[in-house]
Amino acid sequence: MDPALINFKVLYVLTQLCGLTMIVLVGTWIGQHFGGLGGTANPKLEFNWHPLFMTIGFIYLYGNSILIYRGFRTTRKKTLKLTHAGIHMAAFILTVIALKTVFDSHNLASPPIPNMYSLHSWLGLSAVIVFSLQYVAGFVAFLAPGLRENYRIAMMPLHIYFGLFGFVLAIASALMGLTEKAIFAITNPAYSTLPPAGVLANVIGVLYVVFGALVVYLATEPSYKRKPIPEDTALLNSSSANE
Amino acid sequence: MDPALINFKVLYVLTQLCGLTMIVLVGTWIGQHFGGLGGTANPKLEFNWHPLFMTIGFIYLYGNSILIYRGFRTTRKKTLKLTHAGIHMAAFILTVIALKTVFDSHNLASPPIPNMYSLHSWLGLSAVIVFSLQYVAGFVAFLAPGLRENYRIAMMPLHIYFGLFGFVLAIASALMGLTEKAIFAITNPAYSTLPPAGVLANVIGVLYVVFGALVVYLATEPSYKRKPIPEDTALLNSSSANE
Repeated sequence: MDPALINFKVLYVLTQLCGLTMIVLVGTWIGQHFGGLGGTANPKLEFNWHPLFMTIGFIYLYGNSILIYRGFRTTRKKTLKLTHAGIHMAAFILTVIALKTVFDSHNLASPPIPNMYSLHSWLGLSAVIVFSLQYVAGFVAFLAPGLRENYRIAMMPLHIYFGLFGFVLAIASALMGLTEKAIFAITNPAYSTLPPAGVLANVIGVLYVVFGALVVYLATEPSYKRKPIPEDTALLNSSSANE
Repeated sequence: MDPALINFKVLYVLTQLCGLTMIVLVGTWIGQHFGGLGGTANPKLEFNWHPLFMTIGFIYLYGNSILIYRGFRTTRKKTLKLTHAGIHMAAFILTVIALKTVFDSHNLASPPIPNMYSLHSWLGLSAVIVFSLQYVAGFVAFLAPGLRENYRIAMMPLHIYFGLFGFVLAIASALMGLTEKAIFAITNPAYSTLPPAGVLANVIGVLYVVFGALVVYLATEPSYKRKPIPEDTALLNSSSANE
């Protein structure tokens, strides 16, 4: 096997382990230290959906959707495109729920906590907007109705750049969110004494960075790029013929 | 002129404007809202060197040093390498001073503030370590003594990847630092009411992200890559002949 492909597979498995550990630790963090999950009746517990669903949707699924072309290189292009759009849609739905729970947890608290004042909220919402615009533009250009090939070729580098930009911005926002939550909620004993909840917050942050660094590397290293397979063209032709 | 080069120049000027604005605003922020700069006699004011020198050194100079090859493409390679190493050294010195002032401001406060407990400190120091290792490896491999060409070619993609990784991690750390400072120090009125000091913090954070996004784009877009110029080879040969 191509040595580049072996490297890719090792790093890809590492990325998954890192991503899954990250999700488990976020679950542990909110479960062990912040009372677990809850509904609108308890705004503090409803808040806890926010880091959990953002981590699963806006970091883990977003990253995995980016990697789908390189991770499943023997699958035909059309299937990969649909999977890419599908995972991104799942990521978007979890992200919207995660946004709803944080607004609820602010608005239903007594006294209510102001919304959208922090740098975390400004950059986090920017990342969601970049993601959403990318989704619409990518869907129209590459999936349905699909633009002419020269437009698609011209758009692809921007689609990749802004896709990775939104992903990195999501991670940077998550790091600020962890920082806020650690300062506000790890108070007895204080975050500054580095109690278990604080160590766990920092370890989750480190995992976000390692996961992000791996995804960006796997998505940009030229030798890992998927090469077109015969089925891509064959099916394209047969589908054209059927139209 | 090559249209790609015109695009590059426009974005390059925008990057500089964004970077300089960022520095001026950090200066304004600490000057107008946190009492300006001071020495070891006043730990709170000594702290203020930390965001200022990190912004100038670890963000603005670091980013500009990355861009030197593409920004000054008609300069010969050897000069660019020396300038790259020189600006990085200036960035490193400012970063070390910025680290000293934050440790001072913690240790000299009464009561002292613990060091290295926050995610900001963990990831920020990681970025400094990545930067330092990169400097040593890059210096040895590409400048003096310089490794054989096949090693240099093999190392270059990793040098670029980890250089950009350290830069993005520095920006992510700065965003967490802004978040911490805003929560701890914007208290009357509180950060959550978004007073001028809070708006300024958020605007600085947005500028960090825009500056970082522009630097990474300019440094990675293939059509902006510097092409070897005749002087590179000519001077290489004459220098070899003189040895």
